[in-house]
Amino acid sequence: MSLTEDQRAEIAAHGRESFSTRRPTVAALEAMLYQPLEVLDHGFLRVVDYMGDDSAIVQAARVSYGRGTRRVSEDAGLIRYLMRHRHSSPFEMCEIKFHVKLPIFVARQWIRHRMASVNEYSARYSILDSEFYLPAPEHMAAQSEVNRQGRGDVLPPDAASEVLDILRGDALRTYGNYERLLDKDEGFGLARELARVNLTLNTYTQWYWKTDLHNLMHFLALRLDPHAQYEIRAYAEEMLAVLHAWVPQTAAAFEEYRRGAVTFSASMMAVLRRMLAGETVVREGTGLSQREWDEMMASLNPSA
Amino acid sequence: MSLTEDQRAEIAAHGRESFSTRRPTVAALEAMLYQPLEVLDHGFLRVVDYMGDDSAIVQAARVSYGRGTRRVSEDAGLIRYLMRHRHSSPFEMCEIKFHVKLPIFVARQWIRHRMASVNEYSARYSILDSEFYLPAPEHMAAQSEVNRQGRGDVLPPDAASEVLDILRGDALRTYGNYERLLDKDEGFGLARELARVNLTLNTYTQWYWKTDLHNLMHFLALRLDPHAQYEIRAYAEEMLAVLHAWVPQTAAAFEEYRRGAVTFSASMMAVLRRMLAGETVVREGTGLSQREWDEMMASLNPSA
Amino acid sequence: MSLTEDQRAEIAAHGRESFSTRRPTVAALEAMLYQPLEVLDHGFLRVVDYMGDDSAIVQAARVSYGRGTRRVSEDAGLIRYLMRHRHSSPFEMCEIKFHVKLPIFVARQWIRHRMASVNEYSARYSILDSEFYLPAPEHMAAQSEVNRQGRGDVLPPDAASEVLDILRGDALRTYGNYERLLDKDEGFGLARELARVNLTLNTYTQWYWKTDLHNLMHFLALRLDPHAQYEIRAYAEEMLAVLHAWVPQTAAAFEEYRRGAVTFSASMMAVLRRMLAGETVVREGTGLSQREWDEMMASLNPSA
Amino acid sequence: MSLTEDQRAEIAAHGRESFSTRRPTVAALEAMLYQPLEVLDHGFLRVVDYMGDDSAIVQAARVSYGRGTRRVSEDAGLIRYLMRHRHSSPFEMCEIKFHVKLPIFVARQWIRHRMASVNEYSARYSILDSEFYLPAPEHMAAQSEVNRQGRGDVLPPDAASEVLDILRGDALRTYGNYERLLDKDEGFGLARELARVNLTLNTYTQWYWKTDLHNLMHFLALRLDPHAQYEIRAYAEEMLAVLHAWVPQTAAAFEEYRRGAVTFSASMMAVLRRMLAGETVVREGTGLSQREWDEMMASLNPSA
Repeated sequence: MSLTEDQRAEIAAHGRESFSTRRPTVAALEAMLYQPLEVLDHGFLRVVDYMGDDSAIVQAARVSYGRGTRRVSEDAGLIRYLMRHRHSSPFEMCEIKFHVKLPIFVARQWIRHRMASVNEYSARYSILDSEFYLPAPEHMAAQSEVNRQGRGDVLPPDAASEVLDILRGDALRTYGNYERLLDKDEGFGLARELARVNLTLNTYTQWYWKTDLHNLMHFLALRLDPHAQYEIRAYAEEMLAVLHAWVPQTAAAFEEYRRGAVTFSASMMAVLRRMLAGETVVREGTGLSQREWDEMMASLNPSA
Repeated sequence: MSLTEDQRAEIAAHGRESFSTRRPTVAALEAMLYQPLEVLDHGFLRVVDYMGDDSAIVQAARVSYGRGTRRVSEDAGLIRYLMRHRHSSPFEMCEIKFHVKLPIFVARQWIRHRMASVNEYSARYSILDSEFYLPAPEHMAAQSEVNRQGRGDVLPPDAASEVLDILRGDALRTYGNYERLLDKDEGFGLARELARVNLTLNTYTQWYWKTDLHNLMHFLALRLDPHAQYEIRAYAEEMLAVLHAWVPQTAAAFEEYRRGAVTFSASMMAVLRRMLAGETVVREGTGLSQREWDEMMASLNPSA
Repeated sequence: MSLTEDQRAEIAAHGRESFSTRRPTVAALEAMLYQPLEVLDHGFLRVVDYMGDDSAIVQAARVSYGRGTRRVSEDAGLIRYLMRHRHSSPFEMCEIKFHVKLPIFVARQWIRHRMASVNEYSARYSILDSEFYLPAPEHMAAQSEVNRQGRGDVLPPDAASEVLDILRGDALRTYGNYERLLDKDEGFGLARELARVNLTLNTYTQWYWKTDLHNLMHFLALRLDPHAQYEIRAYAEEMLAVLHAWVPQTAAAFEEYRRGAVTFSASMMAVLRRMLAGETVVREGTGLSQREWDEMMASLNPSA
Repeated sequence: MSLTEDQRAEIAAHGRESFSTRRPTVAALEAMLYQPLEVLDHGFLRVVDYMGDDSAIVQAARVSYGRGTRRVSEDAGLIRYLMRHRHSSPFEMCEIKFHVKLPIFVARQWIRHRMASVNEYSARYSILDSEFYLPAPEHMAAQSEVNRQGRGDVLPPDAASEVLDILRGDALRTYGNYERLLDKDEGFGLARELARVNLTLNTYTQWYWKTDLHNLMHFLALRLDPHAQYEIRAYAEEMLAVLHAWVPQTAAAFEEYRRGAVTFSASMMAVLRRMLAGETVVREGTGLSQREWDEMMASLNPSA
């Protein structure tokens, strides 16, 4: 992880500061505030601000449901109810802001989540550092044979090492040329907005990224999925830890009703009902594709 | 202004609470927190949470501009620069949440601002109070003769009084029938979601409304405009006061580059250049409509 | 259903017109174009424009998946795959525009779907017609005892008739006063933007509403739900028919993977696995609430 | 410009097809449909679908303004009025879909426009072609001395040629290694999602990009600006030509009220009024920065 000196100084300064507020405050998240969580080889994720807590969700929901609801359910129960019935607006009432350092190819996946605000480091305006993502040997995997957009077996150590040499060599070479293109004295003084096009996609960038709790959970549901690319999943996993620290009741409901939940299609429901009636069902005639069938059976018998 | 007992109790409780936080904190806004600002006859607006301050905007912008920018400009100068060049993303980094009580016809205009999160009191779930907006005599105006969607002269006192009687009478009558429709014992026990359709559009509702600073200023730019309906403008004016308390440097830049700014079309610019060259310009041949011409001249000579 | 003369003339004119285009065209939807579908007592829904068809979704998805994918799956299979894995962006590539006449209280629910464009009839600018929604006797229901935001039994005929008299009486009276408030000669010449506040929430308004296919299906998933209020569901049902005419393969996938699908929480999945292993499971100790348990059992045994 | 064989075949097929529709149709845009417009060295932009025309904007606006407005203004006048007063919703009623081939660094700027739908070629799923952007000599410029994010003088021919050699050499080398990383037989069979990280930011990607007319004009206002990077401006210029073909009245209003318009701040307006009163104004005491002053004077006297 590479923080600039300015960033280190800023974090140290924040460590000494404390303010008085009448706003909802979450001690567990305050403890994490500003601290970088390491991700990948040079990346990090840190919470730089937040708004709201579990009770803010409940409070917003109760504006909707009005008087008389206070006693109906406890907070955790109401949060479970909202999550289960996919009520999104109360969860939009909480907000979080991250400072993230991440490779450009990860940033390109991440930015597809439109319901967020972003300020990215501008390589038109400033010079990018010589930092690029190189996969650890255990993540250096062959193309999957079964999944067109996934990884298969890990490469043998020798091959992994050769691949690493290629990636490192190309990144160093293109970065070296980037510097030469920029250099006014010994190089060409090329405009920054042009010189940067010579960098490889594993170069690190950084941004401030702010979203609400509803959209954060949508991001996590997609990016924690085993089919998500490992490198963005690594960030999502740190964000999941932040979620648990920030809004523990919401995080528990998220695990129960989103991450651990399984959706069965209409045809799968028909199969399920026949199975529960004691029938031994075969795929033929169910309308399910082989892949759907396999996934359904795997979800019903995860240990098999 | 009509707060429920629960709301009064909640405000009183917040008044006694104070927490420690490492987040950016704005003393002037903390002082306003939770306190209802009266709007119209029964409405209010109160800030229930916020995130960020002027320096958060600067900090986000500096992620974009990277190292070396810290000394280039002071904070206020950078904020002015961002506002002037219509950079929106740094202003999206601040967030504010309001609790608002407002007539339904105002809510219908307000909700058109889509870049916000809303939890409204549900009249399917709960019963609305007997509160409805009745214009004060000085706002009881005739249809404008020149502006199809505006107000003209204030009604004479007698007429205003008669109008008030009609509005009050209909609101009371329809609300009385609403109660009778709902009443299980003495009325009909009609479903709440149906009974509410008998209410008039001046009935008060309430909601939590949360948006970011960029979208708040967009809301203000539109709703502070003299052409906005008075009743929503009354809310916007209170929100403008909140803006000044929350982010004074941003608010100053907003006044300079948005509220006080004037945009001249291509044809107006041609006229302006001729005027500055000493020519006495007449409208004919400029391509400007009479209304455009009048508005341009008024902006150049506001005291006329 | 009440179309204005202008609207009738416009529909008749469109009936005689036909243009040549190289864009994707859907014959079944062309046949419905501009024709009003009646909803409720005075409302309607009509398609006024559209963009794309089932093949446009496939084409967009194939930009993503690149060469080599053409033979992998047929179009319908790809659409099913996209729907099942909740890929949203290819479905955003189709767009539809409706002209809708609807009661204001329905419009207030509908507008909560923010990912859409709206132009509503302006009652600041123009005068609303004397049309208001009055429920048919079979929809005149009592408040549900079990669902705080739902309807229970239909009212007895006498009560329904009395309720109807109240609703009609109040709507006519407030509309009559609206006219009197507006009338410059015999009334008060009150500004339109003020006079309208005297109208009841069942008054009809109208708008153009445009959204993409992804967001249309999201709207339908929520508003076709039995828990949605009947009056908005009535519009959703007509829109579902439009969906089937427009994009039949997508509509079939929507029925299979959304409307007919059931999601089980993590705890429900544990129960299900025990049931499939032959165990007789009781609710105690499963972590499910009584309501969750009941809903789960109902989904597994819908005829019971 | 490099179209794949499939794309050429698709374009040729569309050239022979014609359908009958009752939807609004624009002959000038039909003539452009599917045809690639060349941008940069290997990029293109082509319209693949559209919805609506100038009259659709008028029609939507008239839903808002209701009866009685038909005669008030002609279509062009209404469109000018809507543009001038920044009414956005009627312009949202038209939609356009492009197929674009563009360098990744341009795509990274473009994607910041969130109010659009995108399907991008997936380099997790497929293999990118060996195509990368190399600036033409006349665009090979030095870093600006006055604008931290802009270009200054064009490089001398020799330097430009050397820079080109570096950019080409690095792109070829990293692409060659990309192929070797991917190759199962002669290389390493590395997962596509990993191998791609070795590519440089000038590699071409492609996507379908769909937005509404309001957001298209917002894109154009920002990306046609002289401060926008040349490479994205090159696409914006082709899109402006499309705008004129598609909605000529709207495009004219866009030129008049957006591109050709100038906004003066509150302090600038004070200066302007003094100038018009015949005073010789100097910057000191006006509250304007030197840069604001210079820009204001330049806008008032563009030929100077």
